[in-house]
Formats: sequence, C-alpha cells, structure tokens
Amino acid sequence: MKLLEERILAEGQIMENGILKVDGFVNHQVDPILMDACGREFAGIFAHLGATKVLTAEISGIAPALTTALHLGIPVVYARKTKPITMPDQVYLTLAPSHTKGRMVELIISPEYLSGGEKVLIIDDFLASGATILGLVRLAEAAGAKVVGIGALIEKSFEGGRNVLKPVGVPIKSLACITEMTADKIVFGNPA
Amino acid sequence: MKLLEERILAEGQIMENGILKVDGFVNHQVDPILMDACGREFAGIFAHLGATKVLTAEISGIAPALTTALHLGIPVVYARKTKPITMPDQVYLTLAPSHTKGRMVELIISPEYLSGGEKVLIIDDFLASGATILGLVRLAEAAGAKVVGIGALIEKSFEGGRNVLKPVGVPIKSLACITEMTADKIVFGNPA
Repeated sequence: MKLLEERILAEGQIMENGILKVDGFVNHQVDPILMDACGREFAGIFAHLGATKVLTAEISGIAPALTTALHLGIPVVYARKTKPITMPDQVYLTLAPSHTKGRMVELIISPEYLSGGEKVLIIDDFLASGATILGLVRLAEAAGAKVVGIGALIEKSFEGGRNVLKPVGVPIKSLACITEMTADKIVFGNPA
Repeated sequence: MKLLEERILAEGQIMENGILKVDGFVNHQVDPILMDACGREFAGIFAHLGATKVLTAEISGIAPALTTALHLGIPVVYARKTKPITMPDQVYLTLAPSHTKGRMVELIISPEYLSGGEKVLIIDDFLASGATILGLVRLAEAAGAKVVGIGALIEKSFEGGRNVLKPVGVPIKSLACITEMTADKIVFGNPA
C-alpha cells in the first residue's frame, strides 16, 4: 500500500536493535486517517472470507483492527495482556514473546466474546517473528473459532514470521512488506 | 446519546464492586460502528475548540479517541502505561490510580508527540473519579500544551469526577451520564 510505504520511508526510524520505530503514526501517536485507509484496504482484501470477528492484541493492534472491523461491519476483540477485574476467572490464556518489551507477555481472551463457530480475522500492526499472531491463533483455536485470515500493517519478511504462520493455512497479507532493512535503508518488496 | 445509553441498558453489567462492565462493546470487545458514532458525536461537540491533538490513555480510551480524531482530522496520542523501548529516556510521566486494576499506574507520553502550543482534546472511556483524566491534564500541561476540552463516553456522576476536573476550566462532556446505579438499576440524567 503506497500510502503506508511512503509514510514509513518519511517517518519510520530504524533503531539499533533492529526495531522499526513508527511511534509517530502507528504506535504512540496514531494518524487516524491513515489507519482508516489501512482498515478499508484490509476490509477489501478479506471481505470474501466472511469473518464474523476481528481479533487483535492490545495495544498497538487496536487502531488498525478497529478500522478494519468498522469497514467490515463486525466487532473487534482485543486480547488483554493483564486480566482486568471485569473478566471472569475462566479465560483463554497463552504466552507470547514481546519484541518491544523484551519479555514474555500474556495474551488473554474472555470466553464471553469468542466462541465456537466464529470466523476470525486476525489484524496486528507488525508481522515480524510471527509470535504474537501465532499466540492469537492459539487463542482463537482454544475457543473453537476458525481463523480465516491474517493481516498486518507492516511485515518484516526477513524475520520469518510468514513461514511460522504458513501452517495455519489461511491468506496472510501485509500492507507494507519490508524485505531489507539496514541502519539507513528500507527496501519494500513482495513476501517470499 | 441515545444509542450509547440504550446499549448500556441492554448489555452493561453492574459488578459487586460498583464497576460497570461494558466489556461487550467498549472494553474488550469493541463495537466499531457504535465507537464511530460516538467519535462523530464528540467531533461535533468539540469542533469549535480548534483542538490540534486528541489525547487519551491506553487501553480502553484508544477506540473512542481514535474515532473522534478521525472525524476531527487530527492525530491522537495515547499515554502508555509502560515505557516501550522505542521511547526516549526523557518522558512526561505521572501516576494515576486505576479502578479496574486496583493500583496506581503510570501514564507516560513522549515529548516527541506533545509539545508547547498544542491544543489538546482529552477523550476517555469513563469519567468516574476523574483521576485518569486529571493525570492526562497534568501530562498535557507538563508538555506546555493547552487542554481545551474533555470528553468521556460514560460518566458516573456520583463519583465526583466532574468536580475534580472543574478547575481545569474547559468544557466537559459525556455521552451517557449515569446519575444513579444500583445492583439492578441504571439511571441516566444530566450532570449536576
């Protein structure tokens, strides 16, 4: 998606640890017009799959998942990383490593909002190692729901996440696929 | 706002500890169409104030803040509760008590995305004690920005938050104001 790629080139910052910082329009400050355009794009790509729910992980997945859900006209559920007191004792819980936090985090969903028979579209901000999205796949499967598609705003294809997710057997789509990233260069391309 | 009040009556659950659980459409599962309608409503209410940025707190504030920002055509910044490694060492930080977590939480904003001269509209899911929103006011003021308005989806007027925020001297608007709440009854009204 041209609009997103241009924004990454203009404002993305490559940090020492290989992290692409997009805090100015995705992760801390959010450009709602860009997010809406991305949500519309995802909705167009995945509309034919008949998803009944969008699933994401707090926090950074919420914005693109919400706009995707808005354009599909279905609810969005975001997995929590800490269990709020409003959640029942019995939950679906899995662990996934967090790149930006440098430790394992919990991903928790209440059975109240994800159940058997649902068709789930997973949307997240990044597809890098694929670990967070795989955690969401596990949660959806634990709930008896069927994952029908996976979308990420930004893919770092050289981190191998797409191969990790291939066994899920659903369409995987990123709106900006980075095939090469060095301290001063970002190259976009098609996922291998 | 009729639509929101009706949804609260239909699906809100009053918990033992006086917490109104709206996890089915605001806090864990989100109804994007309702959130979009709420964002449009806020944008209409606050448009004349000339806000340059919407400010909220992760996590539950993100959805209504994003849709408000979308309809106003301005960016949204969400205060983080843990400092990600993408954030610089120098940040604006304050502490605020969290009802649903039962402890103090940090609210952190990077100076990169909030600066002097900005006109800030604060949007959150709940206005109860006012503590979280007051924390956001402190952050905005620390950055030299000017708070121009405060909006919450749901106000629990009997918890006194409006009085806490009155000294800020800006318009405060909730889309659903609960004046009375018992185990089996929710009464909406005008804020005192």
